Amino acid sequence: GWARAVRGLLLDVSGVLYDSGADGGVPIAGSAEAVRRIKASGLKLRFCTNETQATREKFVKKLQGLGFDISVAEVTAPAPAACSILKERGLRPHLLVHDDLVPEFAEIDKTNPNCVVIGDAAENFTYANLNEAFRVLIGMEKPVLLSLGQGRYYKETDGLKLDVGAYMKALEYACDVQAEVVGKPAKRFFESALAEMGVPPEQAIMIGDDIVNDVGGAQRCGMRALQVRTGKYRPSDENHPDVKPDAYVNNLAEAVDIILRQL
Amino acid sequence: GWARAVRGLLLDVSGVLYDSGADGGVPIAGSAEAVRRIKASGLKLRFCTNETQATREKFVKKLQGLGFDISVAEVTAPAPAACSILKERGLRPHLLVHDDLVPEFAEIDKTNPNCVVIGDAAENFTYANLNEAFRVLIGMEKPVLLSLGQGRYYKETDGLKLDVGAYMKALEYACDVQAEVVGKPAKRFFESALAEMGVPPEQAIMIGDDIVNDVGGAQRCGMRALQVRTGKYRPSDENHPDVKPDAYVNNLAEAVDIILRQL
Repeated sequence: GWARAVRGLLLDVSGVLYDSGADGGVPIAGSAEAVRRIKASGLKLRFCTNETQATREKFVKKLQGLGFDISVAEVTAPAPAACSILKERGLRPHLLVHDDLVPEFAEIDKTNPNCVVIGDAAENFTYANLNEAFRVLIGMEKPVLLSLGQGRYYKETDGLKLDVGAYMKALEYACDVQAEVVGKPAKRFFESALAEMGVPPEQAIMIGDDIVNDVGGAQRCGMRALQVRTGKYRPSDENHPDVKPDAYVNNLAEAVDIILRQL
Repeated sequence: GWARAVRGLLLDVSGVLYDSGADGGVPIAGSAEAVRRIKASGLKLRFCTNETQATREKFVKKLQGLGFDISVAEVTAPAPAACSILKERGLRPHLLVHDDLVPEFAEIDKTNPNCVVIGDAAENFTYANLNEAFRVLIGMEKPVLLSLGQGRYYKETDGLKLDVGAYMKALEYACDVQAEVVGKPAKRFFESALAEMGVPPEQAIMIGDDIVNDVGGAQRCGMRALQVRTGKYRPSDENHPDVKPDAYVNNLAEAVDIILRQL
């Protein structure tokens, strides 16, 4: 079965551990207990999120408040991944991101920008800010655009919101450039999560609610991947033209039950 | 030569007659006189613009103020073209357009929208307005998005601005839908301008500064097309991979000189 020979788990957070919302969100039944059981089992564990509306510190504090055993050192997130790329390539970003994400870039030289980093800026997606990011990009000899994800939209308690991917497409079109996506489903992003766990892809399982970004992305790295029927899961995902998970599970608790039974 | 057997001219406005700007803009030398000479020659004439930041009335008044002999009845513009499509197909639009364009849709039923019309909304491209247009679209069984142009960006006196095409791409991506472009370079748009002149495409010449939207679009309708070296023209346009104008001219005045000499 799909649960054989596993040494490490990658868990998506929103939609797997909890359902997010302006009120802070609510835990998904059984998920906090499931995380504790993974840790007690000796399996390696990483939380692998595309969250870009807060620093990891703030994000982890919220999850601890919801009852999860999680620490900053266990989280793979797009902003620190972007920082590695920026340092590696000597890039100085102009940031179009959420105010609460800015501290993640504290160590990065942002003077005289030679690239644009776009995240889910939410209220910061103003006409003026979009034009400014565009002008920085179009002014470069060879525009470099890093995008912290490529989501289309998401749901909040007050309705659907356009996600970073939509604004990324606007800048891509205006500047005739292709963005480099830093979070899931980028191969490099999953690979750093695996490296941080010290587990090769064939011994790891990704568990997520997003058929494309979690399941498809992990499988392209040689991992197995499960889709949970919580969070943004929709029954139509089971007929996705390109991606087929190694298995469906009703929720994280069920996945952990099956995996631990096989150990 | 390219100027033979011509009975009608289609003129782009911004970049051919005048250069626009927050100050109202300035006429391009010789263009007002060129328009008068066309009219005196007996050639048919239409102004064919993608302008969507003002009603035709307001737009024409501005051009008259700059010394041009032009009337509302001579202008083909995206908003009235969109109104024909909306009526024809029984579509009730949610409008994401410039405040000054709204009166063009006065006759159109906008209750209980079953499509979205996007124009160059400028300051109306707020986070809230984009989310609202997105929610209307994604809520439809089969989303219908009409876009009043597909420009990438344009220049104003205070800098470059993202044009309607960038926001169109954002909504296309978020809703997994293809917009129907109503202005240039849409075939139907040029065809209505030709029908309004009563001239077949093979007897008409389009004169514009935009290599793709003016020249490419007109040629695909069977017209000849000239690119002027004014407005948004850039020397690199002369190496465009897909589009080659029938001729280049330094400006409208030069084109009209050559055309009238051949009559």
